[in-house]
Amino acid sequence: MTANIRPDELTRSLIETAHAAAQAARDETLRSFRGNALGTTSKLAEGFDPVTVADRAAETAMRAVIERLRPEDAIVGEEFGAKDGTSGLTWVLDPIDGTRAYISGTPTWGVLIGLRDASRVLMGIIDQPYIGERFFGGFGIAEMTGPHGSKALKSSTCRTLDEAIIFTTFPEMGGEAEARAFADLSARCKLTRYGMDCYAYALLAAGHVDLVVEAGLQSYDVLGPIGVIEAAGGIVTDWRGGPAMEGGRVIAAANATLHNEALAILSTY
Amino acid sequence: MTANIRPDELTRSLIETAHAAAQAARDETLRSFRGNALGTTSKLAEGFDPVTVADRAAETAMRAVIERLRPEDAIVGEEFGAKDGTSGLTWVLDPIDGTRAYISGTPTWGVLIGLRDASRVLMGIIDQPYIGERFFGGFGIAEMTGPHGSKALKSSTCRTLDEAIIFTTFPEMGGEAEARAFADLSARCKLTRYGMDCYAYALLAAGHVDLVVEAGLQSYDVLGPIGVIEAAGGIVTDWRGGPAMEGGRVIAAANATLHNEALAILSTY
Repeated sequence: MTANIRPDELTRSLIETAHAAAQAARDETLRSFRGNALGTTSKLAEGFDPVTVADRAAETAMRAVIERLRPEDAIVGEEFGAKDGTSGLTWVLDPIDGTRAYISGTPTWGVLIGLRDASRVLMGIIDQPYIGERFFGGFGIAEMTGPHGSKALKSSTCRTLDEAIIFTTFPEMGGEAEARAFADLSARCKLTRYGMDCYAYALLAAGHVDLVVEAGLQSYDVLGPIGVIEAAGGIVTDWRGGPAMEGGRVIAAANATLHNEALAILSTY
Repeated sequence: MTANIRPDELTRSLIETAHAAAQAARDETLRSFRGNALGTTSKLAEGFDPVTVADRAAETAMRAVIERLRPEDAIVGEEFGAKDGTSGLTWVLDPIDGTRAYISGTPTWGVLIGLRDASRVLMGIIDQPYIGERFFGGFGIAEMTGPHGSKALKSSTCRTLDEAIIFTTFPEMGGEAEARAFADLSARCKLTRYGMDCYAYALLAAGHVDLVVEAGLQSYDVLGPIGVIEAAGGIVTDWRGGPAMEGGRVIAAANATLHNEALAILSTY
Protein backbone atom coordinates (compact mmCIF):
# COMPACT_ATOMS: atom_id res chain seq x y z
CA MET A 1 0.00 0.00 0.00
CA THR A 2 1.07 3.62 0.37
CA ALA A 3 4.77 3.52 1.38
CA ASN A 4 5.39 6.78 3.20
CA ILE A 5 2.87 6.56 6.06
CA ARG A 6 2.75 4.02 8.87
CA PRO A 7 0.28 1.14 8.59
CA ASP A 8 -1.74 2.15 11.64
CA GLU A 9 -2.12 5.69 10.31
CA LEU A 10 -3.22 4.29 6.97
CA THR A 11 -5.72 1.96 8.62
CA ARG A 12 -7.16 4.76 10.72
CA SER A 13 -7.45 7.00 7.68
CA LEU A 14 -9.25 4.30 5.69
CA ILE A 15 -11.72 3.50 8.47
CA GLU A 16 -12.49 7.18 9.05
CA THR A 17 -12.99 7.73 5.35
CA ALA A 18 -15.36 4.77 5.11
CA HIS A 19 -17.54 6.01 7.98
CA ALA A 20 -17.51 9.59 6.66
CA ALA A 21 -18.59 8.38 3.22
CA ALA A 22 -21.35 6.23 4.74
CA GLN A 23 -22.61 9.18 6.77
CA ALA A 24 -22.67 11.42 3.70
CA ALA A 25 -24.68 8.80 1.79
CA ARG A 26 -27.01 8.35 4.75
CA ASP A 27 -27.92 12.02 4.70
CA GLU A 28 -28.56 12.04 0.95
CA THR A 29 -30.56 8.82 0.78
CA LEU A 30 -32.78 9.77 3.70
CA ARG A 31 -33.65 13.09 2.11
CA SER A 32 -35.88 11.40 -0.47
CA PHE A 33 -36.81 8.10 1.20
CA ARG A 34 -40.59 7.76 1.61
CA GLY A 35 -40.82 11.42 0.67
CA ASN A 36 -42.28 13.51 -2.09
CA ALA A 37 -38.89 14.39 -3.55
CA LEU A 38 -38.55 10.91 -5.01
CA GLY A 39 -37.98 10.95 -8.74
CA THR A 40 -37.33 7.82 -10.74
CA THR A 41 -36.08 7.36 -14.26
CA SER A 42 -35.60 4.11 -16.08
CA LYS A 43 -31.95 3.19 -16.64
CA LEU A 44 -32.81 0.32 -18.94
CA ALA A 45 -35.21 0.67 -21.86
CA GLU A 46 -36.87 -2.61 -20.92
CA GLY A 47 -37.13 -4.16 -17.47
CA PHE A 48 -37.46 -2.16 -14.33
CA ASP A 49 -34.32 -0.63 -12.86
CA PRO A 50 -35.25 2.59 -11.11
CA VAL A 51 -32.54 5.10 -10.45
CA THR A 52 -33.47 7.75 -7.99
CA VAL A 53 -32.25 11.24 -7.48
CA ALA A 54 -31.01 10.00 -4.13
CA ASP A 55 -28.90 7.29 -5.75
CA ARG A 56 -26.90 9.84 -7.70
CA ALA A 57 -26.72 12.38 -4.90
CA ALA A 58 -25.46 9.74 -2.47
CA GLU A 59 -22.70 8.53 -4.80
CA THR A 60 -21.66 12.12 -5.51
CA ALA A 61 -21.46 12.79 -1.78
CA MET A 62 -19.41 9.63 -1.11
CA ARG A 63 -17.00 10.43 -3.95
CA ALA A 64 -16.50 13.95 -2.62
CA VAL A 65 -15.59 12.57 0.83
CA ILE A 66 -13.15 9.99 -0.57
CA GLU A 67 -11.53 12.44 -3.01
CA ARG A 68 -10.96 14.87 -0.16
CA LEU A 69 -9.65 12.38 2.43
CA ARG A 70 -8.00 9.80 0.13
CA PRO A 71 -7.17 11.58 -3.14
CA GLU A 72 -4.64 8.91 -4.11
CA ASP A 73 -7.22 6.06 -4.12
CA ALA A 74 -9.21 4.81 -7.10
CA ILE A 75 -13.04 4.83 -7.01
CA VAL A 76 -15.58 2.70 -8.83
CA GLY A 77 -19.26 3.50 -8.37
CA GLU A 78 -22.51 2.14 -9.74
CA GLU A 79 -23.69 5.47 -11.06
CA PHE A 80 -20.59 7.39 -12.15
CA GLY A 81 -18.06 4.73 -13.18
CA ALA A 82 -14.31 4.60 -12.49
CA LYS A 83 -11.71 7.12 -11.35
CA ASP A 84 -8.06 5.99 -11.40
CA GLY A 85 -5.77 6.16 -8.38
CA THR A 86 -2.10 5.69 -7.49
CA SER A 87 -2.28 3.94 -4.10
CA GLY A 88 -3.26 0.48 -5.28
CA LEU A 89 -6.49 0.80 -3.29
CA THR A 90 -9.95 1.04 -4.86
CA TRP A 91 -13.22 2.13 -3.22
CA VAL A 92 -16.24 0.32 -4.66
CA LEU A 93 -19.54 2.12 -4.07
CA ASP A 94 -23.21 1.24 -4.41
CA PRO A 95 -25.13 4.27 -3.15
CA ILE A 96 -28.47 2.43 -2.97
CA ASP A 97 -28.38 -1.33 -3.20
CA GLY A 98 -32.00 -2.36 -3.50
CA THR A 99 -33.57 0.50 -5.43
CA ARG A 100 -36.80 -1.52 -5.67
CA ALA A 101 -36.88 -1.72 -1.87
CA TYR A 102 -36.14 2.00 -1.69
CA ILE A 103 -39.06 3.00 -3.91
CA SER A 104 -41.35 0.61 -2.00
CA GLY A 105 -40.48 2.19 1.34
CA THR A 106 -38.96 -1.05 2.68
CA PRO A 107 -36.04 -0.46 5.07
CA THR A 108 -33.95 -3.28 3.61
CA TRP A 109 -31.97 -1.37 0.99
CA GLY A 110 -28.50 -0.23 1.91
CA VAL A 111 -25.48 1.88 1.13
CA LEU A 112 -22.56 -0.40 0.23
CA ILE A 113 -18.92 0.59 0.52
CA GLY A 114 -16.06 -1.79 -0.21
CA LEU A 115 -12.31 -1.27 -0.24
CA ARG A 116 -10.05 -3.61 -2.23
CA ASP A 117 -6.48 -3.92 -3.38
CA ALA A 118 -5.43 -5.94 -6.42
CA SER A 119 -6.16 -9.30 -4.84
CA ARG A 120 -8.67 -9.03 -2.01
CA VAL A 121 -11.33 -7.08 -0.08
CA LEU A 122 -9.87 -5.16 2.87
CA MET A 123 -12.95 -3.53 4.38
CA GLY A 124 -16.70 -3.29 3.89
CA ILE A 125 -19.74 -1.37 5.10
CA ILE A 126 -23.44 -2.16 4.81
CA ASP A 127 -25.40 0.85 6.05
CA GLN A 128 -29.19 1.05 6.48
CA PRO A 129 -29.91 4.75 6.89
CA TYR A 130 -33.60 4.62 7.82
CA ILE A 131 -33.14 2.18 10.70
CA GLY A 132 -29.81 3.82 11.52
CA GLU A 133 -27.82 0.59 11.36
CA ARG A 134 -24.24 0.24 10.17
CA PHE A 135 -22.46 -3.09 9.69
CA PHE A 136 -18.66 -2.69 9.48
CA GLY A 137 -15.94 -5.24 8.79
CA GLY A 138 -12.21 -4.95 8.16
CA PHE A 139 -8.77 -4.44 9.74
CA GLY A 140 -9.64 -6.72 12.63
CA ILE A 141 -12.98 -5.04 13.37
CA ALA A 142 -16.41 -6.68 12.89
CA GLU A 143 -19.15 -4.61 14.47
CA MET A 144 -22.65 -3.30 13.97
CA THR A 145 -24.14 -0.16 15.48
CA GLY A 146 -27.88 0.42 15.49
CA PRO A 147 -30.88 1.83 17.34
CA HIS A 148 -30.29 -0.50 20.29
CA GLY A 149 -26.52 -0.06 20.65
CA SER A 150 -23.40 -1.77 19.27
CA LYS A 151 -22.62 -5.46 18.93
CA ALA A 152 -19.75 -7.57 17.63
CA LEU A 153 -20.53 -9.36 14.37
CA LYS A 154 -20.00 -13.11 14.36
CA SER A 155 -21.41 -15.41 11.71
CA SER A 156 -23.32 -18.51 12.83
CA THR A 157 -22.00 -21.97 13.65
CA CYS A 158 -24.78 -23.70 11.67
CA ARG A 159 -23.04 -26.56 9.84
CA THR A 160 -25.80 -28.46 8.05
CA LEU A 161 -28.25 -27.41 5.34
CA ASP A 162 -31.24 -28.85 7.19
CA GLU A 163 -30.62 -26.37 10.01
CA ALA A 164 -29.83 -23.43 7.73
CA ILE A 165 -31.82 -20.26 7.00
CA ILE A 166 -31.23 -19.26 3.37
CA PHE A 167 -32.01 -15.92 1.72
CA THR A 168 -32.20 -14.59 -1.79
CA THR A 169 -33.75 -11.43 -3.17
CA PHE A 170 -35.80 -12.69 -6.11
CA PRO A 171 -37.44 -16.12 -6.36
CA GLU A 172 -37.13 -15.62 -10.13
CA MET A 173 -33.36 -15.16 -9.73
CA GLY A 174 -31.23 -15.14 -12.86
CA GLY A 175 -31.92 -17.58 -15.68
CA GLU A 176 -33.79 -20.87 -15.57
CA ALA A 177 -30.77 -22.96 -14.55
CA GLU A 178 -29.95 -20.54 -11.74
CA ALA A 179 -33.53 -20.61 -10.45
CA ARG A 180 -33.42 -24.44 -10.53
CA ALA A 181 -30.13 -24.47 -8.65
CA PHE A 182 -31.52 -22.20 -5.98
CA ALA A 183 -34.71 -24.25 -5.66
CA ASP A 184 -32.64 -27.43 -5.30
CA LEU A 185 -30.50 -25.93 -2.56
CA SER A 186 -33.25 -24.11 -0.71
CA ALA A 187 -35.43 -27.26 -0.59
CA ARG A 188 -32.74 -28.82 1.61
CA CYS A 189 -32.65 -25.87 4.02
CA LYS A 190 -34.78 -25.28 7.09
CA LEU A 191 -36.19 -21.96 5.98
CA THR A 192 -36.11 -19.87 2.79
CA ARG A 193 -36.75 -16.14 2.79
CA TYR A 194 -36.92 -13.58 -0.02
CA GLY A 195 -36.65 -9.90 -0.73
CA MET A 196 -33.95 -8.52 1.56
CA ASP A 197 -31.38 -7.22 -0.96
CA CYS A 198 -28.05 -6.42 0.76
CA TYR A 199 -29.67 -6.60 4.18
CA ALA A 200 -29.51 -10.40 3.96
CA TYR A 201 -25.69 -10.18 3.91
CA ALA A 202 -25.75 -8.01 7.01
CA LEU A 203 -27.96 -10.56 8.77
CA LEU A 204 -25.51 -13.31 7.77
CA ALA A 205 -22.59 -11.37 9.25
CA ALA A 206 -24.61 -10.86 12.44
CA GLY A 207 -25.23 -14.60 12.79
CA HIS A 208 -29.01 -14.60 12.15
CA VAL A 209 -28.94 -16.03 8.63
CA ASP A 210 -26.72 -18.87 7.41
CA LEU A 211 -26.69 -18.69 3.60
CA VAL A 212 -27.28 -16.02 0.96
CA VAL A 213 -27.30 -17.09 -2.70
CA GLU A 214 -27.69 -14.75 -5.63
CA ALA A 215 -26.94 -14.48 -9.34
CA GLY A 216 -26.32 -11.66 -11.79
CA LEU A 217 -24.57 -9.42 -9.27
CA GLN A 218 -22.17 -6.62 -10.07
CA SER A 219 -18.89 -6.02 -8.25
CA TYR A 220 -20.39 -3.05 -6.38
CA ASP A 221 -23.26 -5.26 -5.13
CA VAL A 222 -20.90 -7.59 -3.34
CA LEU A 223 -17.62 -5.83 -2.41
CA GLY A 224 -18.99 -4.19 0.72
CA PRO A 225 -20.81 -7.35 1.87
CA ILE A 226 -17.64 -9.44 1.34
CA GLY A 227 -15.71 -7.12 3.64
CA VAL A 228 -18.33 -7.32 6.38
CA ILE A 229 -18.94 -11.07 6.12
CA GLU A 230 -15.28 -12.11 5.99
CA ALA A 231 -14.51 -9.98 9.04
CA ALA A 232 -17.38 -11.72 10.87
CA GLY A 233 -16.05 -15.19 10.07
CA GLY A 234 -18.10 -16.01 6.97
CA ILE A 235 -17.10 -16.96 3.44
CA VAL A 236 -18.16 -15.47 0.10
CA THR A 237 -17.31 -17.12 -3.23
CA ASP A 238 -18.85 -17.70 -6.64
CA TRP A 239 -20.83 -20.90 -7.33
CA ARG A 240 -17.57 -22.72 -8.22
CA GLY A 241 -15.73 -21.74 -5.04
CA GLY A 242 -13.68 -19.04 -6.78
CA PRO A 243 -13.42 -15.34 -5.92
CA ALA A 244 -16.68 -13.38 -5.86
CA MET A 245 -15.19 -9.88 -6.01
CA GLU A 246 -16.38 -9.33 -9.57
CA GLY A 247 -19.97 -10.35 -8.80
CA GLY A 248 -21.91 -12.81 -10.97
CA ARG A 249 -23.20 -15.90 -9.13
CA VAL A 250 -22.49 -15.47 -5.45
CA ILE A 251 -22.77 -17.69 -2.39
CA ALA A 252 -22.21 -16.32 1.10
CA ALA A 253 -22.01 -18.82 3.96
CA ALA A 254 -21.64 -18.53 7.71
CA ASN A 255 -18.66 -20.89 7.84
CA ALA A 256 -16.50 -23.25 5.77
CA THR A 257 -18.47 -26.41 6.57
CA LEU A 258 -21.80 -24.96 5.50
CA HIS A 259 -20.14 -23.35 2.49
CA ASN A 260 -18.94 -26.78 1.33
CA GLU A 261 -22.43 -28.25 1.77
CA ALA A 262 -24.02 -25.54 -0.34
CA LEU A 263 -21.24 -25.56 -2.93
CA ALA A 264 -21.72 -29.30 -3.47
CA ILE A 265 -25.22 -28.51 -4.77
CA LEU A 266 -24.66 -25.25 -6.61
CA SER A 267 -21.46 -26.31 -8.39
CA THR A 268 -23.42 -28.95 -10.30
CA TYR A 269 -25.39 -26.21 -12.09
CA MET B 1 -70.94 0.15 22.81
CA THR B 2 -70.64 0.69 26.56
CA ALA B 3 -73.67 2.75 27.57
CA ASN B 4 -72.67 4.53 30.75
CA ILE B 5 -69.61 6.51 29.60
CA ARG B 6 -69.41 9.25 26.98
CA PRO B 7 -68.16 8.35 23.50
CA ASP B 8 -65.10 10.59 23.69
CA GLU B 9 -64.05 9.04 27.00
CA LEU B 10 -64.53 5.60 25.52
CA THR B 11 -62.50 6.51 22.45
CA ARG B 12 -59.69 7.93 24.54
CA SER B 13 -59.68 4.85 26.75
CA LEU B 14 -59.49 2.53 23.74
CA ILE B 15 -56.67 4.45 22.07
CA GLU B 16 -54.66 4.60 25.30
CA THR B 17 -55.18 0.90 25.87
CA ALA B 18 -54.02 0.08 22.34
CA HIS B 19 -50.81 2.08 22.71
CA ALA B 20 -50.13 0.67 26.18
CA ALA B 21 -50.58 -2.87 24.88
CA ALA B 22 -48.30 -2.18 21.91
CA GLN B 23 -45.63 -0.78 24.22
CA ALA B 24 -45.82 -3.82 26.49
CA ALA B 25 -45.41 -6.12 23.49
CA ARG B 26 -42.53 -4.01 22.17
CA ASP B 27 -40.59 -4.51 25.40
CA GLU B 28 -41.16 -8.27 25.42
CA THR B 29 -40.41 -8.90 21.75
CA LEU B 30 -37.22 -6.84 21.81
CA ARG B 31 -35.88 -8.77 24.78
CA SER B 32 -35.19 -11.83 22.65
CA PHE B 33 -34.87 -10.38 19.14
CA ARG B 34 -31.45 -11.12 17.63
CA GLY B 35 -30.38 -12.25 21.07
CA ASN B 36 -29.27 -15.41 22.79
CA ALA B 37 -32.52 -15.81 24.71
CA LEU B 38 -34.32 -16.95 21.58
CA GLY B 39 -35.97 -20.32 22.02
CA THR B 40 -38.17 -21.87 19.37
CA THR B 41 -40.53 -24.80 19.52
CA SER B 42 -42.54 -26.24 16.70
CA LYS B 43 -46.28 -25.62 17.00
CA LEU B 44 -47.14 -27.93 14.15
CA ALA B 45 -45.76 -31.45 13.89
CA GLU B 46 -45.03 -30.93 10.21
CA GLY B 47 -44.15 -27.70 8.47
CA PHE B 48 -42.27 -24.88 10.05
CA ASP B 49 -44.15 -22.59 12.41
CA PRO B 50 -41.75 -21.33 15.05
CA VAL B 51 -43.22 -19.97 18.22
CA THR B 52 -40.82 -18.09 20.33
CA VAL B 53 -40.67 -17.37 23.99
CA ALA B 54 -41.14 -13.75 23.00
CA ASP B 55 -44.38 -14.51 21.17
CA ARG B 56 -46.00 -15.88 24.32
CA ALA B 57 -44.50 -13.27 26.63
CA ALA B 58 -45.72 -10.47 24.37
CA GLU B 59 -49.29 -11.76 24.20
CA THR B 60 -49.34 -12.29 27.96
CA ALA B 61 -48.18 -8.71 28.46
CA MET B 62 -50.79 -7.31 26.07
CA ARG B 63 -53.57 -9.32 27.70
CA ALA B 64 -52.53 -8.04 31.13
CA VAL B 65 -52.73 -4.43 29.92
CA ILE B 66 -56.14 -4.90 28.30
CA GLU B 67 -57.59 -6.83 31.25
CA ARG B 68 -56.46 -4.06 33.56
CA LEU B 69 -57.63 -1.08 31.48
CA ARG B 70 -60.62 -2.62 29.67
CA PRO B 71 -61.83 -5.58 31.79
CA GLU B 72 -65.22 -5.58 30.05
CA ASP B 73 -63.79 -6.26 26.55
CA ALA B 74 -63.30 -9.65 24.91
CA ILE B 75 -59.83 -10.74 23.77
CA VAL B 76 -58.73 -13.14 21.05
CA GLY B 77 -55.01 -13.87 20.68
CA GLU B 78 -52.94 -16.12 18.45
CA GLU B 79 -51.27 -17.89 21.34
CA PHE B 80 -53.81 -18.06 24.15
CA GLY B 81 -57.20 -18.14 22.45
CA ALA B 82 -60.41 -16.32 23.44
CA LYS B 83 -61.62 -14.57 26.57
CA ASP B 84 -65.27 -13.44 26.61
CA GLY B 85 -66.38 -9.89 27.34
CA THR B 86 -69.54 -7.88 27.96
CA SER B 87 -68.90 -4.62 26.08
CA GLY B 88 -69.43 -5.89 22.53
CA LEU B 89 -65.82 -4.99 21.74
CA THR B 90 -63.12 -7.57 20.99
CA TRP B 91 -59.34 -7.06 20.93
CA VAL B 92 -57.62 -9.28 18.38
CA LEU B 93 -53.90 -9.81 19.04
CA ASP B 94 -50.98 -11.22 17.10
CA PRO B 95 -47.92 -10.75 19.32
CA ILE B 96 -45.41 -11.51 16.54
CA ASP B 97 -46.74 -11.54 13.00
CA GLY B 98 -43.88 -12.92 10.93
CA THR B 99 -42.17 -15.34 13.28
CA ARG B 100 -39.96 -16.47 10.38
CA ALA B 101 -38.79 -12.89 9.95
CA TYR B 102 -38.25 -12.65 13.69
CA ILE B 103 -35.99 -15.69 13.89
CA SER B 104 -34.09 -14.48 10.80
CA GLY B 105 -33.34 -11.12 12.39
CA THR B 106 -35.31 -9.24 9.71
CA PRO B 107 -37.01 -6.08 11.02
CA THR B 108 -40.22 -6.69 9.06
CA TRP B 109 -42.23 -8.66 11.63
CA GLY B 110 -44.72 -6.76 13.73
CA VAL B 111 -47.03 -6.68 16.70
CA LEU B 112 -50.64 -6.53 15.49
CA ILE B 113 -53.53 -5.18 17.53
CA GLY B 114 -57.05 -4.89 16.17
CA LEU B 115 -60.28 -3.81 17.82
CA ARG B 116 -63.64 -4.86 16.42
CA ASP B 117 -67.31 -4.87 17.26
CA ALA B 118 -69.81 -7.34 15.83
CA SER B 119 -69.70 -5.91 12.32
CA ARG B 120 -66.48 -3.99 11.67
CA VAL B 121 -62.92 -3.07 12.59
CA LEU B 122 -62.73 0.08 14.71
CA MET B 123 -58.98 0.50 15.25
CA GLY B 124 -55.69 -1.12 14.35
CA ILE B 125 -51.98 -0.98 15.16
CA ILE B 126 -48.99 -2.37 13.30
CA ASP B 127 -45.91 -1.94 15.49
CA GLN B 128 -42.30 -2.72 14.48
CA PRO B 129 -40.38 -2.70 17.76
CA TYR B 130 -36.80 -2.95 16.46
CA ILE B 131 -37.10 0.04 14.12
CA GLY B 132 -39.34 1.75 16.64
CA GLU B 133 -42.18 2.37 14.20
CA ARG B 134 -45.87 2.37 15.04
CA PHE B 135 -48.67 2.61 12.45
CA PHE B 136 -52.02 3.55 14.00
CA GLY B 137 -55.46 3.86 12.45
CA GLY B 138 -58.92 4.40 13.90
CA PHE B 139 -61.39 6.93 15.36
CA GLY B 140 -60.40 9.53 12.75
CA ILE B 141 -56.66 9.11 13.30
CA ALA B 142 -54.23 7.67 10.73
CA GLU B 143 -50.63 8.25 11.76
CA MET B 144 -47.22 6.61 11.96
CA THR B 145 -44.47 7.46 14.40
CA GLY B 146 -40.91 6.30 13.81
CA PRO B 147 -37.22 7.06 14.14
CA HIS B 148 -37.56 10.15 11.93
CA GLY B 149 -40.71 11.62 13.49
CA SER B 150 -44.45 11.34 12.88
CA LYS B 151 -46.40 11.43 9.66
CA ALA B 152 -50.03 11.18 8.58
CA LEU B 153 -50.88 7.92 6.83
CA LYS B 154 -52.53 8.27 3.41
CA SER B 155 -52.78 5.41 0.95
CA SER B 156 -51.66 6.03 -2.63
CA THR B 157 -53.67 7.37 -5.56
CA CYS B 158 -52.32 4.71 -7.95
CA ARG B 159 -55.31 3.64 -10.04
CA THR B 160 -53.97 1.16 -12.60
CA LEU B 161 -52.28 -2.20 -12.19
CA ASP B 162 -49.46 -1.32 -14.56
CA GLU B 163 -48.39 1.44 -12.17
CA ALA B 164 -48.89 -0.60 -9.01
CA ILE B 165 -46.35 -2.04 -6.59
CA ILE B 166 -47.67 -5.36 -5.25
CA PHE B 167 -46.45 -7.31 -2.23
CA THR B 168 -46.94 -10.77 -0.84
CA THR B 169 -44.98 -12.69 1.75
CA PHE B 170 -44.42 -16.06 0.09
CA PRO B 171 -44.07 -16.64 -3.65
CA GLU B 172 -45.35 -20.16 -2.91
CA MET B 173 -48.51 -18.67 -1.32
CA GLY B 174 -51.37 -20.99 -0.48
CA GLY B 175 -52.37 -23.75 -2.85
CA GLU B 176 -51.67 -24.08 -6.56
CA ALA B 177 -54.72 -22.09 -7.67
CA GLU B 178 -53.87 -19.26 -5.26
CA ALA B 179 -50.27 -19.13 -6.49
CA ARG B 180 -51.56 -19.00 -10.09
CA ALA B 181 -53.96 -16.19 -9.22
CA PHE B 182 -51.20 -14.18 -7.62
CA ALA B 183 -48.85 -14.78 -10.57
CA ASP B 184 -51.59 -13.67 -12.98
CA LEU B 185 -52.22 -10.46 -11.05
CA SER B 186 -48.60 -9.63 -10.26
CA ALA B 187 -47.57 -10.06 -13.91
CA ARG B 188 -49.82 -7.05 -14.70
CA CYS B 189 -48.24 -4.88 -12.01
CA LYS B 190 -45.20 -2.63 -12.27
CA LEU B 191 -43.24 -4.29 -9.48
CA THR B 192 -43.63 -7.37 -7.29
CA ARG B 193 -41.90 -7.75 -3.93
CA TYR B 194 -41.84 -10.58 -1.41
CA GLY B 195 -41.13 -11.35 2.20
CA MET B 196 -42.46 -8.41 4.22
CA ASP B 197 -45.15 -10.07 6.37
CA CYS B 198 -47.38 -7.45 8.06
CA TYR B 199 -44.93 -4.69 7.20
CA ALA B 200 -46.33 -4.67 3.67
CA TYR B 201 -49.71 -3.55 5.04
CA ALA B 202 -48.02 -0.72 6.92
CA LEU B 203 -46.29 0.38 3.71
CA LEU B 204 -49.64 0.32 1.92
CA ALA B 205 -51.23 2.53 4.58
CA ALA B 206 -48.28 4.91 4.26
CA GLY B 207 -48.76 5.21 0.49
CA HIS B 208 -45.55 3.44 -0.63
CA VAL B 209 -47.14 0.19 -1.78
CA ASP B 210 -50.39 -0.15 -3.73
CA LEU B 211 -51.53 -3.76 -3.33
CA VAL B 212 -50.98 -6.58 -0.84
CA VAL B 213 -52.41 -10.00 -1.65
CA GLU B 214 -52.24 -13.04 0.61
CA ALA B 215 -53.97 -16.34 1.30
CA GLY B 216 -54.40 -18.60 4.29
CA LEU B 217 -54.53 -15.77 6.81
CA GLN B 218 -56.07 -15.91 10.26
CA SER B 219 -58.26 -13.21 11.74
CA TYR B 220 -55.42 -12.03 14.00
CA ASP B 221 -53.14 -11.62 10.94
CA VAL B 222 -55.44 -9.09 9.34
CA LEU B 223 -57.56 -7.29 11.98
CA GLY B 224 -54.84 -4.80 12.95
CA PRO B 225 -53.85 -4.12 9.33
CA ILE B 226 -57.51 -3.55 8.34
CA GLY B 227 -57.83 -0.87 11.03
CA VAL B 228 -54.69 0.92 9.88
CA ILE B 229 -55.39 0.66 6.15
CA GLU B 230 -59.05 1.71 6.27
CA ALA B 231 -58.13 4.74 8.38
CA ALA B 232 -55.53 5.68 5.75
CA GLY B 233 -58.04 5.49 2.90
CA GLY B 234 -57.39 1.96 1.65
CA ILE B 235 -59.68 -1.05 1.26
CA VAL B 236 -59.29 -4.61 2.52
CA THR B 237 -61.58 -7.45 1.41
CA ASP B 238 -61.42 -11.13 0.56
CA TRP B 239 -60.84 -12.23 -3.05
CA ARG B 240 -64.59 -12.02 -3.76
CA GLY B 241 -64.98 -8.48 -2.43
CA GLY B 242 -66.53 -9.62 0.87
CA PRO B 243 -65.36 -8.90 4.43
CA ALA B 244 -61.79 -9.91 5.28
CA MET B 245 -62.10 -9.76 9.07
CA GLU B 246 -61.96 -13.53 9.42
CA GLY B 247 -58.79 -13.86 7.32
CA GLY B 248 -58.48 -16.39 4.50
CA ARG B 249 -57.71 -14.92 1.07
CA VAL B 250 -57.09 -11.22 1.50
CA ILE B 251 -56.57 -8.30 -0.86
CA ALA B 252 -55.58 -4.87 0.42
CA ALA B 253 -55.66 -1.99 -2.04
CA ALA B 254 -54.76 1.68 -1.86
CA ASN B 255 -58.13 2.83 -3.20
CA ALA B 256 -61.44 1.64 -4.67
CA THR B 257 -60.39 1.93 -8.31
CA LEU B 258 -57.28 -0.18 -7.89
CA HIS B 259 -59.21 -2.60 -5.70
CA ASN B 260 -61.70 -3.17 -8.52
CA GLU B 261 -58.88 -3.75 -11.01
CA ALA B 262 -57.26 -6.38 -8.82
CA LEU B 263 -60.56 -7.99 -7.85
CA ALA B 264 -61.44 -8.47 -11.52
CA ILE B 265 -58.46 -10.82 -11.79
CA LEU B 266 -58.52 -12.53 -8.40
CA SER B 267 -62.26 -13.21 -8.33
CA THR B 268 -61.88 -15.52 -11.34
CA TYR B 269 -59.80 -17.93 -9.23
